[in-house]
Amino acid sequence: MGLLVLKFGGTSVATVPAIENVASKVAQEIAAGHKVAVVVSAMAGVTNQLVSYCSAISQIFDAKEYDAIVASGEQVTSGLLALALQKRGIPARSWLGWQVPIVTSDVHGKARIKAVETDTLRASLERGEVAVIAGFQGLAPGGRITTLGRGGSDTSAVAVAAALKADRCDIYTDVDGVYTSDPRIVSRAKKIPKISYEEMLEMASVGAKVLQTRSVELAMKEKVPVQVLSSFESASGSEIPGTMVMDEDRIVEQEVVSGVTHSRDEAKVSLRSLPDVPGVAAKIFGPLAEAAINVDMIVQNVSPDKARTDLTFTVSRADLPKTLEVLKAVQQTDLAGTTIDSSADVSKISIIGIGMRSYVGVASKMFQVLAEKGINIQVITTSEIKVSVLIGEEYTELAVRSLHTAYGLDQAQAS
Amino acid sequence: MGLLVLKFGGTSVATVPAIENVASKVAQEIAAGHKVAVVVSAMAGVTNQLVSYCSAISQIFDAKEYDAIVASGEQVTSGLLALALQKRGIPARSWLGWQVPIVTSDVHGKARIKAVETDTLRASLERGEVAVIAGFQGLAPGGRITTLGRGGSDTSAVAVAAALKADRCDIYTDVDGVYTSDPRIVSRAKKIPKISYEEMLEMASVGAKVLQTRSVELAMKEKVPVQVLSSFESASGSEIPGTMVMDEDRIVEQEVVSGVTHSRDEAKVSLRSLPDVPGVAAKIFGPLAEAAINVDMIVQNVSPDKARTDLTFTVSRADLPKTLEVLKAVQQTDLAGTTIDSSADVSKISIIGIGMRSYVGVASKMFQVLAEKGINIQVITTSEIKVSVLIGEEYTELAVRSLHTAYGLDQAQAS
Repeated sequence: MGLLVLKFGGTSVATVPAIENVASKVAQEIAAGHKVAVVVSAMAGVTNQLVSYCSAISQIFDAKEYDAIVASGEQVTSGLLALALQKRGIPARSWLGWQVPIVTSDVHGKARIKAVETDTLRASLERGEVAVIAGFQGLAPGGRITTLGRGGSDTSAVAVAAALKADRCDIYTDVDGVYTSDPRIVSRAKKIPKISYEEMLEMASVGAKVLQTRSVELAMKEKVPVQVLSSFESASGSEIPGTMVMDEDRIVEQEVVSGVTHSRDEAKVSLRSLPDVPGVAAKIFGPLAEAAINVDMIVQNVSPDKARTDLTFTVSRADLPKTLEVLKAVQQTDLAGTTIDSSADVSKISIIGIGMRSYVGVASKMFQVLAEKGINIQVITTSEIKVSVLIGEEYTELAVRSLHTAYGLDQAQAS
Repeated sequence: MGLLVLKFGGTSVATVPAIENVASKVAQEIAAGHKVAVVVSAMAGVTNQLVSYCSAISQIFDAKEYDAIVASGEQVTSGLLALALQKRGIPARSWLGWQVPIVTSDVHGKARIKAVETDTLRASLERGEVAVIAGFQGLAPGGRITTLGRGGSDTSAVAVAAALKADRCDIYTDVDGVYTSDPRIVSRAKKIPKISYEEMLEMASVGAKVLQTRSVELAMKEKVPVQVLSSFESASGSEIPGTMVMDEDRIVEQEVVSGVTHSRDEAKVSLRSLPDVPGVAAKIFGPLAEAAINVDMIVQNVSPDKARTDLTFTVSRADLPKTLEVLKAVQQTDLAGTTIDSSADVSKISIIGIGMRSYVGVASKMFQVLAEKGINIQVITTSEIKVSVLIGEEYTELAVRSLHTAYGLDQAQAS
């Protein structure tokens, strides 16, 4: 018996029957004696439709009006879920961002939650109602509707859970948890029962797109236990566990490596014979940042010619043409004698694990495994809990599977 | 140069191109130097879609949630129109019912407007913005969204015009004005340039469904000049006039009869040999009212048998079976000896005109015209500015055309 916040995304509420299914899940938690607040997204496709209306009028549109328009999607879903709960004899009431209110900054289109006022929600819960909250939206100080940016409903749910001091925040999605690797590549990938916030952040940022990054950051800051689980199973989150994302201190049996991830959305750019003088990096990354190009891995080596250096970095594959365009402009003005190489047939493989901090040899094992398979490592970057390497794209599956086995992540085979 | 409130219905904002067309009309009024507030409905079909979601969950649903759900339609349109105006370089801002606020009663699903707060709207207009207001919706004292019932956006527009003391409220619709008769029946029907509120109310209630009745009542009470005009012409309402609905004192050249209307949605019920005792009418109309059956024309005659009487009344055709069911129940308990006749092949023809008050012989001319055409009158009712007769349905066109000519309403033919 506790207070749960449940969040259901767009595919979980895509149709009226899907919303009925969500109502059944909520009913199970109510029957188990929990108090429940629910956060919902718009019905799948609705937000895209609304955005397309805006784009059809103008490519550059006022974010204040955009917010008022797209926030209507969650308004519909929250009302419909309240109706579906009421039909089951469960008192329920919908609450929009401005009604709670969920107070945000006034950066329209990507506002940040400043505070979730709890008086209205607590009163609703104390009346015995399920509080059904429209996700993704809030209220700016000036009284206008704001939205939190794509995937913002995850953040809404965590913020509501933090404000209400909920026992758990269950994020229902189209996967039943976080896996040690992509099951489409690694057939023996297994569901991770517990993962730390830090690991989850690293997982999400390298491609295991389950939770919005901001929601995990917020959960970590507010110490909200978050569970990722499937809305397409008949059991509720209290019955069949998904993956719990929680403080590392609460995870007793910590694996050294929790997961192996990969990303094919990578392109590599190398600048050779770069003048090795102060300010040269700024001359390159300044214009790229201005062009809104996100640079990921960066390594700089000493060149054979001591007055010159080599620089390699990665960008997302879609940004490669624009990146080369920017660099060529820089080359003409500032980088005489520098050559630019690029390739898009690369893949980034990462191993992630809190346990790395207390074990030595984790990275070297990775390099050894890849070497044994004859896979050349082009770039390496490391963080405290992650090692990433860039390799030729054709080796992606081989690398992921080999590492998954090497770090003992393979699921025991049914005998 | 003045302050105009323009209202655009669902077909006028059905698509993005239609919304662009609306923006062009608003731009014309701005270019002419007017300040403009706009009230919009949901895109055609959207409200029906939202209602169908509610009905799919439950036939009986909570009106509070219904209101939150369906109000989202106008939210989208108001934002999109603001964007379309901004694209034309016209500052614009959308305002939802709760933002204005438009304060209503808490009768969800058919709330009545109590007050339109003007501070927010005036500030918006004074900043040089077009205030784009979501029609059909308001805010109940408890902080929940309300809706005004179908067609409520007309009422929103008139209420906003009254609160802002606008010079005119232009209701753009799919017809270019109010006609002396249905042009599909009377080819020489002409557009009425000016009509009084009272006449408009009588026109609307007998089938010329152009404006929501409540909006006309409100306009009459608040003396708001309302113009009905087409959104499908390129000119604005300040350029090509539609029909002005206004106080009769301001209409200089008043026709004796302004229009001839008809309704085929009629059924006649006759009770013969009814006991002529006090309370008998209540025994009949009480149960009908309880069954939510709306009774229109009622006439009672003296019967040859002095202790008995004949009673005839009309109901809408769809209500006839239910009416007969109710009457048969009453017959068994209270009306022994009474016979019940009914017929659904009847039509109601009305002549409407403020001028009737000051002219004699207007009704008798109607009876004479019908008699000359061999049309039998089954029931007659009169009000101060309307005479209605019930006739056999097959005479509908003949009656309407003959009366239209007889009262001098035919448009001059091009020579």
